[in-house]
Amino acid sequence: MPRGKTLSRSRLPIWRWTVVVTQRDVARLAGVSVRTVSNVVNNFAYVSEETRAQVQRALEELDYRPNLAARSLNRGRSNLLALVLPLDVPYFTELAAHVVDQAEERGYTVLIDRTEGVAERERQIIMRRDRSAIFDGFILSPLGLTEDELRRWVGKCPVVMLGEMQVEGVDHVAIDDTAAARCATAHLISLGRTRIAAIGVPHRPLAEAAEVASVARWETSAHRSAGYGQALAEAGLPVRPELAVPVRRYQREDGRRAMERLLDLAEPPDAVFCYNDLLAVGAVRAVLSRGLRVPQDVAVVGFDGIEEGRFANPALTTIAPDKARIAELAVARLLERVEGDQSPPAQMEAPWSLVVDASSTGVPGQAAPEVRG
Amino acid sequence: MPRGKTLSRSRLPIWRWTVVVTQRDVARLAGVSVRTVSNVVNNFAYVSEETRAQVQRALEELDYRPNLAARSLNRGRSNLLALVLPLDVPYFTELAAHVVDQAEERGYTVLIDRTEGVAERERQIIMRRDRSAIFDGFILSPLGLTEDELRRWVGKCPVVMLGEMQVEGVDHVAIDDTAAARCATAHLISLGRTRIAAIGVPHRPLAEAAEVASVARWETSAHRSAGYGQALAEAGLPVRPELAVPVRRYQREDGRRAMERLLDLAEPPDAVFCYNDLLAVGAVRAVLSRGLRVPQDVAVVGFDGIEEGRFANPALTTIAPDKARIAELAVARLLERVEGDQSPPAQMEAPWSLVVDASSTGVPGQAAPEVRG
Repeated sequence: MPRGKTLSRSRLPIWRWTVVVTQRDVARLAGVSVRTVSNVVNNFAYVSEETRAQVQRALEELDYRPNLAARSLNRGRSNLLALVLPLDVPYFTELAAHVVDQAEERGYTVLIDRTEGVAERERQIIMRRDRSAIFDGFILSPLGLTEDELRRWVGKCPVVMLGEMQVEGVDHVAIDDTAAARCATAHLISLGRTRIAAIGVPHRPLAEAAEVASVARWETSAHRSAGYGQALAEAGLPVRPELAVPVRRYQREDGRRAMERLLDLAEPPDAVFCYNDLLAVGAVRAVLSRGLRVPQDVAVVGFDGIEEGRFANPALTTIAPDKARIAELAVARLLERVEGDQSPPAQMEAPWSLVVDASSTGVPGQAAPEVRG
Repeated sequence: MPRGKTLSRSRLPIWRWTVVVTQRDVARLAGVSVRTVSNVVNNFAYVSEETRAQVQRALEELDYRPNLAARSLNRGRSNLLALVLPLDVPYFTELAAHVVDQAEERGYTVLIDRTEGVAERERQIIMRRDRSAIFDGFILSPLGLTEDELRRWVGKCPVVMLGEMQVEGVDHVAIDDTAAARCATAHLISLGRTRIAAIGVPHRPLAEAAEVASVARWETSAHRSAGYGQALAEAGLPVRPELAVPVRRYQREDGRRAMERLLDLAEPPDAVFCYNDLLAVGAVRAVLSRGLRVPQDVAVVGFDGIEEGRFANPALTTIAPDKARIAELAVARLLERVEGDQSPPAQMEAPWSLVVDASSTGVPGQAAPEVRG
């Protein structure tokens, strides 16, 4: 019995009473060949429904558990993918749903390893080497890890990265953040706003940011700030440092606090571009709490295109990345890698659109996207 | 080499080029004993930092991967837990964050298997028997499975169930849904409302519901309806069938549509109790879209206490289950089971509170909870 010693029943709870059941035992009980059992266990198609049911009953009766790691070595597949991302931001929850669906269509199951962008948690995930014994591949949206840490890890197993951070040699899916942010800002300018604030700008230069904050979040923030600045420059508007507010996290409460600070200025803004929808939800709350109106007093634009924004009052104007397409590109690429594709790493770009709604125009109802990128 | 044959490099991508590295190889390279390597791999405490770093370097250099299934058989632990629940409802996302935190404090990692309450997906998860080779235990919030299906599965591995559905012999954590729903309805009555609608009531009798819809969701819905009915009866108000609206899912759009129907009645309601916060968000949208006011024309109460509701305009009055406590009870119990506890299954109840806010009283700002259950 090479797979482990049998443990005595008395020392363990019932579910730990592990008798090593082999496919041979199952075959004997089901009255079929070992190959047929293997075909059923591995979900191959060429087994009749009747035989499959017969084997399934035997598997259940004997409580057969395949040795995953051994199976991994023999077949090279577990058909499990890991999705490593924060779930405290609805953008990622919605993206995760698309990834799960896409993978399921192709016969893969996705397990989610949530990080909340905490570098230490991300580090543990990539350090726990047993994970690569479980998973065929990883889709990773790192917020806290440095490029260096990621570079050491990748190459050891198939990985596709999402979001701003790029690592040499790794497949990558993102949208053009700078173009999208420029578009969002230009939309506010087109409405006649001139004092346009930005919530979510980088805290400090990258060199310092790397120590105190998330590198990938810094990158995202920097790209969006670049687009914000470009739009202002194109319209001949000055970039006013007091209107560019950094935040610690991209959560509703951070948006509320940042907007409070902006409203306390001698000359408050007449519009604000928030770097995600949760920040925008918080900003709207701050404006309304002062008895001011959105958008008459302050027009608000978000980023992410989450459902919460569509149902907010007023509904959010936002940049909506095409999440279904991001998921499709990422899953398709990852499975190519799992199946042995060795082509050079690709930088894939997904489309986005500006969805105009009441928080900037005052006109409720989901309009058709005005701009697509 | 009992763990699998070595595969030839040419036939496989680089990350599949599997040389079976043993702890002995690692020990030789690091210049330590096999026992020390084992101690590091298993994260035992009694290894000096220096030695640990030395072994870690050797593990990385050789790309050592522990054989998980074998380790499972030898040690009886993978230190991985599975959390099986839908993530399209923020209540569960927020609950998941608490579960991940609680488990992490105790040295366990949680992987999330999302189901969206789809029975077929839940079925696949519990049928894939290799999952019990990966995970030490399961926390499960089934929405689609029948009690019968669950009963066949449990007992084979440690499971704690969350929510309304109970299965004989399984540990279970929930709140008193009926009492909470009665409290929510009584709150609306205390504000002088008399035509109180309910959104989310069961579609049909359970016998039929079992075929067309989710059993657990039916149970939840039935318990909340019982509380709604009790509060009306206690106040001497009639239960008006036209004010009790079933929904297909517990999503924002379902709430919006249900509220539209209620507003189309000859005598529309002056208040509505929604069976979750997403339904309430949708109901608010429907009321405001008609140029009516919340709460002056229709007061709205939700259920779940999600952050989105606190930042909604108006902010939602809601029943807030104590999610941190639910997670604490579930994780503590599951780990007792993992460690061999064989005591009889427990039905554990977590507290909840009524959080009164602007959607029912018109007074914004998070008041202290008025009622606790």
